[in-house]
Amino acid sequence: MAVDEPEHAGFWDGSASRVALLGSAVLCFARTGFHATTTRDITAAVGLSPGALYVHFPSKEAVLFEIARTGHQRSLDALRAEPDTGDSRAHLHRLVVALVTWHARHHTVARVCQYELAALEPEHLAVVRELRQEFTGVLRAAVQRGVADGLFDVPDVNRAVRAVLSLGIDLVRWYRLDGADPPETIGEAYADLALRMLGSPPDAVSPRCSPPTG
Amino acid sequence: MAVDEPEHAGFWDGSASRVALLGSAVLCFARTGFHATTTRDITAAVGLSPGALYVHFPSKEAVLFEIARTGHQRSLDALRAEPDTGDSRAHLHRLVVALVTWHARHHTVARVCQYELAALEPEHLAVVRELRQEFTGVLRAAVQRGVADGLFDVPDVNRAVRAVLSLGIDLVRWYRLDGADPPETIGEAYADLALRMLGSPPDAVSPRCSPPTG
Repeated sequence: MAVDEPEHAGFWDGSASRVALLGSAVLCFARTGFHATTTRDITAAVGLSPGALYVHFPSKEAVLFEIARTGHQRSLDALRAEPDTGDSRAHLHRLVVALVTWHARHHTVARVCQYELAALEPEHLAVVRELRQEFTGVLRAAVQRGVADGLFDVPDVNRAVRAVLSLGIDLVRWYRLDGADPPETIGEAYADLALRMLGSPPDAVSPRCSPPTG
Repeated sequence: MAVDEPEHAGFWDGSASRVALLGSAVLCFARTGFHATTTRDITAAVGLSPGALYVHFPSKEAVLFEIARTGHQRSLDALRAEPDTGDSRAHLHRLVVALVTWHARHHTVARVCQYELAALEPEHLAVVRELRQEFTGVLRAAVQRGVADGLFDVPDVNRAVRAVLSLGIDLVRWYRLDGADPPETIGEAYADLALRMLGSPPDAVSPRCSPPTG
């Protein structure tokens, strides 16, 4: 499990001990799952007393909610930070780069955000679901505009959006920051693959478009 | 969690109680994770005594290994069952249909196979890793042949194979058998998306290939 993820500079809100608890909980939840993690596991890993968690959070579930809420909000912020300059193709490309780069860089937080949601209380799950719908909505709007502009050709917009999301989200299962590709490299490569799925491949390709030679 | 997955007809080897224990363990591991599941959780859910598990398996980890080994072997069998009739494009399409359909139909077993591997003992993990490499190898060979045949155009074969795998594997996070699309429908749709990623889109599309109209 990578411990060098740069979540620590301003990623979490609050005091140093609150930030330390959230970072520890991310590693514990990602490693053994929410249900197998005790509040003592979380505090011990950062040298705090067992009761220290309850100074900041009412329960272990509240820690998970704070991770899920913040993680989803930060990834949504990353998507929304991409300017829309009016070119649907360039905009979609930038959105996928942002999606993939964010999930690669923050793959451990993102793993908890993706795999542990079933442990949330219903009212917390509803908050996270709303953030997820906003996230999907940004991508869907970009795909729909590309279709309206005649740049994209997809038989089913929702299915195409889900497939693009899968490219980014499945990263959290296998990506490691010490692997071959830095986040930005895989972001660019996957953005090209996403445009191909949307029927708008990069200029260099498509043998079907070659002039006849026979 | 779906309980209607058709793993029960010949999916697992062994006696009725062994099969019941494996089915119960899949649901427990998928629901709360390997580490939070006790052997008593597994036996109680199918009305067996706490000690019954040890008649069939030396440990809880051995149950996980049997699930992972069988799940990976069955999905590899599904891929290998697709005949190669010499047309790289048709072959790749069938492989992706098989990949996606298998992971949709067996999404709960597949979820355990994908998300709980870190809990395996090293010698068991090595066995599963070998099956995974064989699985990836079938897809990689199909992509490489399509490139050699001039039908596919990919800047990086390994990355393209990983992206196609992500389409299938990420299903286990969100797919439900009672959802809108039956496994075969999503299999066909994703196979079309995979061919687009490989630079070999279905015939109907690609505005860039339209004859000039101006």
